[in-house]
Amino acid sequence: MATLPLLQDDAASPEARAVFDDIRAKRNTDYVNNFWRVLAHDPALLKMTWERVQQVMAPGALDPLVKELIYVAVSVTNGCSYCVHSHTAAARAKGMTDAQHAELLAVIALAAQTNALAHALQVEVDERFTAR
Amino acid sequence: MATLPLLQDDAASPEARAVFDDIRAKRNTDYVNNFWRVLAHDPALLKMTWERVQQVMAPGALDPLVKELIYVAVSVTNGCSYCVHSHTAAARAKGMTDAQHAELLAVIALAAQTNALAHALQVEVDERFTAR
Amino acid sequence: MATLPLLQDDAASPEARAVFDDIRAKRNTDYVNNFWRVLAHDPALLKMTWERVQQVMAPGALDPLVKELIYVAVSVTNGCSYCVHSHTAAARAKGMTDAQHAELLAVIALAAQTNALAHALQVEVDERFTAR
Amino acid sequence: MATLPLLQDDAASPEARAVFDDIRAKRNTDYVNNFWRVLAHDPALLKMTWERVQQVMAPGALDPLVKELIYVAVSVTNGCSYCVHSHTAAARAKGMTDAQHAELLAVIALAAQTNALAHALQVEVDERFTAR
Amino acid sequence: MATLPLLQDDAASPEARAVFDDIRAKRNTDYVNNFWRVLAHDPALLKMTWERVQQVMAPGALDPLVKELIYVAVSVTNGCSYCVHSHTAAARAKGMTDAQHAELLAVIALAAQTNALAHALQVEVDERFTAR
Amino acid sequence: MATLPLLQDDAASPEARAVFDDIRAKRNTDYVNNFWRVLAHDPALLKMTWERVQQVMAPGALDPLVKELIYVAVSVTNGCSYCVHSHTAAARAKGMTDAQHAELLAVIALAAQTNALAHALQVEVDERFTAR
Repeated sequence: MATLPLLQDDAASPEARAVFDDIRAKRNTDYVNNFWRVLAHDPALLKMTWERVQQVMAPGALDPLVKELIYVAVSVTNGCSYCVHSHTAAARAKGMTDAQHAELLAVIALAAQTNALAHALQVEVDERFTAR
Repeated sequence: MATLPLLQDDAASPEARAVFDDIRAKRNTDYVNNFWRVLAHDPALLKMTWERVQQVMAPGALDPLVKELIYVAVSVTNGCSYCVHSHTAAARAKGMTDAQHAELLAVIALAAQTNALAHALQVEVDERFTAR
Repeated sequence: MATLPLLQDDAASPEARAVFDDIRAKRNTDYVNNFWRVLAHDPALLKMTWERVQQVMAPGALDPLVKELIYVAVSVTNGCSYCVHSHTAAARAKGMTDAQHAELLAVIALAAQTNALAHALQVEVDERFTAR
Repeated sequence: MATLPLLQDDAASPEARAVFDDIRAKRNTDYVNNFWRVLAHDPALLKMTWERVQQVMAPGALDPLVKELIYVAVSVTNGCSYCVHSHTAAARAKGMTDAQHAELLAVIALAAQTNALAHALQVEVDERFTAR
Repeated sequence: MATLPLLQDDAASPEARAVFDDIRAKRNTDYVNNFWRVLAHDPALLKMTWERVQQVMAPGALDPLVKELIYVAVSVTNGCSYCVHSHTAAARAKGMTDAQHAELLAVIALAAQTNALAHALQVEVDERFTAR
Repeated sequence: MATLPLLQDDAASPEARAVFDDIRAKRNTDYVNNFWRVLAHDPALLKMTWERVQQVMAPGALDPLVKELIYVAVSVTNGCSYCVHSHTAAARAKGMTDAQHAELLAVIALAAQTNALAHALQVEVDERFTAR
């Protein structure tokens, strides 16, 4: 149970409803997921977050699937259950194959392990990694 | 300063030196970075980690640069200074452009923000993200 | 399900029951929440934690609501579901308005984002922030 | 050493320089701190971040000092050294007294401790904290 | 609900089934817990993880119960619910008493608290802790 | 550089000095490390923390070295540089051998890896780990 109730369409403010409608149009679905329905209690934050997601996740120097994999990696490392579920689903919707998913997990697990070792050993950064 | 001293070649065990030599050969450089030189106090862990890095980071369903970007994302989220430096350098060595770096950072920052919001709001996972 | 069962009053030790009674008296409610009922397996830790909570959260140089908002911010960042729920409820009980809640979330989300950027960029601390 | 060089004014793009100038004007100082100088490699992210900081940290339902304390709490919990330094300095600049600083630390430390206990015990959320 | 379905024996590949059988034999039980059943989607990762767990957790310079307590401590700090549950159960199976559990929790809670204070105060490492 | 200056003996309050003297007596050394010297700005927190450290880390159901290893594990996972250094040094002072250190690191690294996998896969807790 969230700390704030999900806002159904008729309980949302007109500003929030406009974002819901934009989500539906851009994603070509009637479904608005829980994250947006809870965020709708603060329509300005809802709007800003939705706009930012579109800007950042759009095709650019990195393709949208690669961005989604990075999103999953951050969410896993932060232990955010909602985010892992929603962005794993998003990655699949953008074409992530089972083999890609398996490799994503292997990289995340490896990085978690070497991050822990570097923290445990307090390894000093090599000069060549910092000098430019 | 690390919690264990850097092992120079002549102080490392033969097993550790063999790994150092393999790192040099595979990376085509004389330089062995500090992470491996500290890890060398436990030659078995050194060997296993180096072998695992090669397996996981090899070309596969995801290309090596994408894997490196995921590695950076995990390292940033774990706040591992050594890892951020070394894997950002590795990503550049594998061809990461400035524009790709900028987009990587934007995705990481966005994910950190929405992860925090999902944690703060304790949003329940939508059934459609879990059902299969 | 917790890793230890909730202790109801009749299963708790006299020392733990004394803390339960103090919680009831100080909070003017019959309800003792799950955190204390699980902690009651270690009556000394229960007592110490309850006493420390009262000391730290009492009015002082910072008012109790501000302290509760800080508590929520730490709990969100640690991804502690129980803590986010209980301290968000506590903040509301101490008078947090919807507008204050919305601003709390906006600050937490902003900080998560700039923390991630600072970690990703490994920005060096400005001398003026450290010198005294 | 950051993963990207600090951009001095003459190396920054006109868009980045405009943000630097706005920081100087709003903060009434000539000094632009390192975070902004590294972020300046991505002028759009620099601009968006600076604008967001101003919006979120402005007086509102919570006063600016309270917001800064929340910012410090998140930064401490994320282990972000740069952020702890810069936002502790900012809190002092906004009037944080030594007594308030001491209480801020005590709350953060207490929350870290009870968060760990709740994680260790996997305490289930009381229904009354979620029902509305 | 996991992001991948649990694989029952008849849905698992021969390689994964061989690991399941080894788990059953080594642990002297018919039960294969969910972690392995989800990991089985990537038989190579399943096999490597199971082998690594056996190597690392075997009696050595530290006894198996001590290793299990360390495992719990990491899992609590990472906020990994599954891991806290499974490794607390494993510690009990290896003989952890209630008194040892209570002390484990007290150390974890204390460390969380002093870690937060050290982060908040950005205490510099004493030379004598690093020099060798 | 810490966010508060190190307090030398003559700058510390009588209450803080009494704690310094107690540290010296109990540890049989003249050296008071930086953590306590920064914490001394809040003598009550200094005293409480020092007393709590003594209680929790004293011999009990777990021996002091085991407690110190758990402390290191938490500190590594939190990425607390000061804490990793000081508690690794403490563990050595309490007799941690190189072989024990190596195994400690291997367990921490393994746990980090499986924690990440469990987070990524969102594995549901087996009923048998929770039922009592």
